[in-house]
Amino acid sequence: MRKRVLVAQSGGPTVAINASLAGVIAGVVRSGEYERIIGAANGILGVLNERFTDLSIFENDVKAGNDSISDIVTSGNDDVQKAWCPKSQLDRLAVTPSMYLGSCRFKLPFYEEDSQLYEKIFAILDKNDIGMFFYIGGNDSMDTVNKLSAYAKSISSDIRFAGIPKSIDNDLPHTDHTPGYGSAAKYIAASIAEMAHDVKIYDIPCVTIIELMGRNAGWLTGAAALARNEYNELPQLIYLPEVDFDKDEFIEDVKNELKKSNCVMVAVSEGIHDSDGNYINAGTSDTFGHDQLGGAAKTLELLVKEKLHIKCRSVEINIMQRCAAHMAAGTDIREAYELGIAGAKYAIEGNTGFIPVLKRISDAPYRSVIEYADLKSIANVEKKVPLEWINKAHNNVTDNMLEYVKPLIKGEILLPYKNGLPDYLWQDTKYMD
Amino acid sequence: MRKRVLVAQSGGPTVAINASLAGVIAGVVRSGEYERIIGAANGILGVLNERFTDLSIFENDVKAGNDSISDIVTSGNDDVQKAWCPKSQLDRLAVTPSMYLGSCRFKLPFYEEDSQLYEKIFAILDKNDIGMFFYIGGNDSMDTVNKLSAYAKSISSDIRFAGIPKSIDNDLPHTDHTPGYGSAAKYIAASIAEMAHDVKIYDIPCVTIIELMGRNAGWLTGAAALARNEYNELPQLIYLPEVDFDKDEFIEDVKNELKKSNCVMVAVSEGIHDSDGNYINAGTSDTFGHDQLGGAAKTLELLVKEKLHIKCRSVEINIMQRCAAHMAAGTDIREAYELGIAGAKYAIEGNTGFIPVLKRISDAPYRSVIEYADLKSIANVEKKVPLEWINKAHNNVTDNMLEYVKPLIKGEILLPYKNGLPDYLWQDTKYMD
Repeated sequence: MRKRVLVAQSGGPTVAINASLAGVIAGVVRSGEYERIIGAANGILGVLNERFTDLSIFENDVKAGNDSISDIVTSGNDDVQKAWCPKSQLDRLAVTPSMYLGSCRFKLPFYEEDSQLYEKIFAILDKNDIGMFFYIGGNDSMDTVNKLSAYAKSISSDIRFAGIPKSIDNDLPHTDHTPGYGSAAKYIAASIAEMAHDVKIYDIPCVTIIELMGRNAGWLTGAAALARNEYNELPQLIYLPEVDFDKDEFIEDVKNELKKSNCVMVAVSEGIHDSDGNYINAGTSDTFGHDQLGGAAKTLELLVKEKLHIKCRSVEINIMQRCAAHMAAGTDIREAYELGIAGAKYAIEGNTGFIPVLKRISDAPYRSVIEYADLKSIANVEKKVPLEWINKAHNNVTDNMLEYVKPLIKGEILLPYKNGLPDYLWQDTKYMD
Repeated sequence: MRKRVLVAQSGGPTVAINASLAGVIAGVVRSGEYERIIGAANGILGVLNERFTDLSIFENDVKAGNDSISDIVTSGNDDVQKAWCPKSQLDRLAVTPSMYLGSCRFKLPFYEEDSQLYEKIFAILDKNDIGMFFYIGGNDSMDTVNKLSAYAKSISSDIRFAGIPKSIDNDLPHTDHTPGYGSAAKYIAASIAEMAHDVKIYDIPCVTIIELMGRNAGWLTGAAALARNEYNELPQLIYLPEVDFDKDEFIEDVKNELKKSNCVMVAVSEGIHDSDGNYINAGTSDTFGHDQLGGAAKTLELLVKEKLHIKCRSVEINIMQRCAAHMAAGTDIREAYELGIAGAKYAIEGNTGFIPVLKRISDAPYRSVIEYADLKSIANVEKKVPLEWINKAHNNVTDNMLEYVKPLIKGEILLPYKNGLPDYLWQDTKYMD
């Protein structure tokens, strides 16, 4: 039997992707079935370039029982001072943002068309005595691991392949939600609530437009509604990319809100578009190049100033929404970890070509279980916000959206601090011989 | 003797300005010399419009001894779980971002030129039996309270006036630093450190440009250097508005850094300008109007793409850097509170026309004491980063800057959470009859 397991990470960063890495390590080590688990640097490129990362400090924590991530309270803490705090290196890994192993954006060709890369990858896996390969990532990464799995079957290789989901965009099908989404939603909601305090202070009409990530799926933008509470009605307007955006209707919406309050806040997805499918980021496209997204909020800021002649500001929360681990959701970190463990177990039991997914059992109290989906059915499919979760005027989300996302941001985590700043692990760039 | 004290807040938000409000309340109530302390809504406009806010919930906390803000540990906590956590309403006020009493941007004329507004203000103060007026704010607000104080002297009024400093920009003279700066610096450093994790993951050349607030003073931009540690050298380049910016030299700086690392991060002030004093936000000025700042990072992003043809991203941390109370610095909140108490005490002792300021006694261990400066000498003066704290190449800060800012971000605060989000007090908009 092959003696080693390989794990890699790919796609865009999230706050929870290292918790899944920690979970895969814990699942593999606890099984006692393999001698080692090692990492590939920069995703599948690390395999191709034979750049492997030693993970023994984490293996040792699991062997010594020094992993406590399953103790995270996910229901929200009455007393923050009793919240979970990482202690071991494996614990710290689980709350370190972005990819500990590095990432890549790399699309494999179909092996039926070009098998050369596949032959190289499998030769390297053979040489390194790899029995299982775990790929933690989003849609594109699931495409990669699905192709590897299919190729393995075609050559009757006994190497097992599994995907582990992650995405701040929450756009993978067959899973209630993806790890990384809850923490991003928590950071977005907290930041918008704080900005509501900020923009409320002047007694003059003003509009604030917040742009959030999610090109085709409005999950993160919909989470902006979490900022509302018994005192705060901001943001009053929310626009998702699942429906068409009309600039004239937008101006009417803002005017209507200004009749009720001097202070209007709007959350928009970076991917809002008109009925012809053109992104609402004209105005900037000639100067900044057609190839880049972003600028929806800036475009609307200019529109409000032009049409309404009032104070208007745009804010792009940008990459901070996917790396702000100091605001990680306990639910998110714990589920990401458990998906890693479950994926490892299921592969060790003999399965391949799968991805562990979350199935929600109840909203309140929130409970989820782990099931397994076929990689084939998940790769390259985008899950969007259901149209019935968007109001009829297309300028807000319904309570269904709120009930869905509410439990996912719960649970606080107390990071260790050093010199006044969160003390994370740093990405390892020393490779094994 | 007059029976009541008035307090108001003005200018741009900070995370610590309500801690100073809490301090003024505590100082006044503890003295036992006045019957009430009340707030004016939206700064001096609240006086003019006679919109006063009841602060009795906070007065009651002080009377009952339920204020514990002085217990905040400012030296950094070995164990975050033992960090200070607000309990009373006064405690919660101290860690609520932005202005609890609202704000305004309003410049008083010189009373020698137009005394009408002054007569109105003083008539309202008389009518409401106000013996002392505290104005918490930055340069512009100090101008206001200085003018009121001068007018009081000119008419031999016995009403006392004091300013309490606040500014994320840290640009007030005569004080080692201003409340609000430390928390903003902590948030900036933490966010940049997290973004360093984010941008490090791809093994391809890329440049990330972070824009920070501070039009004429580079204090916040200089704080970006705090993100560096034994593992992380990002941001390698830092440009302050105290010196001229040259686009060609900037491109050379980036090229040099790219020789050392694939991953280059740059921190720039929103106020960087060329040797003719023109802001580096051309490109956007025609489309977006000359009257607004911002866009330095976007301009440099386009420049890098044009000149170097590599991946480049710009991020504007925007208003989040001044309202992210979930990352408040313990040192900042405690000092803001103590300045409020000291200001109240000093006025009660019979002084007027002053502002309490911080004098640093030592860097390590950090210690500061409170002194008092004349309002006349502080209004409308901007304190900038000393030129000797900027390196010779004008693309970095020196260790002096780091030693200066390091202690100011220390001390963690554990906010109460509700539904997964920080639970702040909300601005009061119910006014007294």
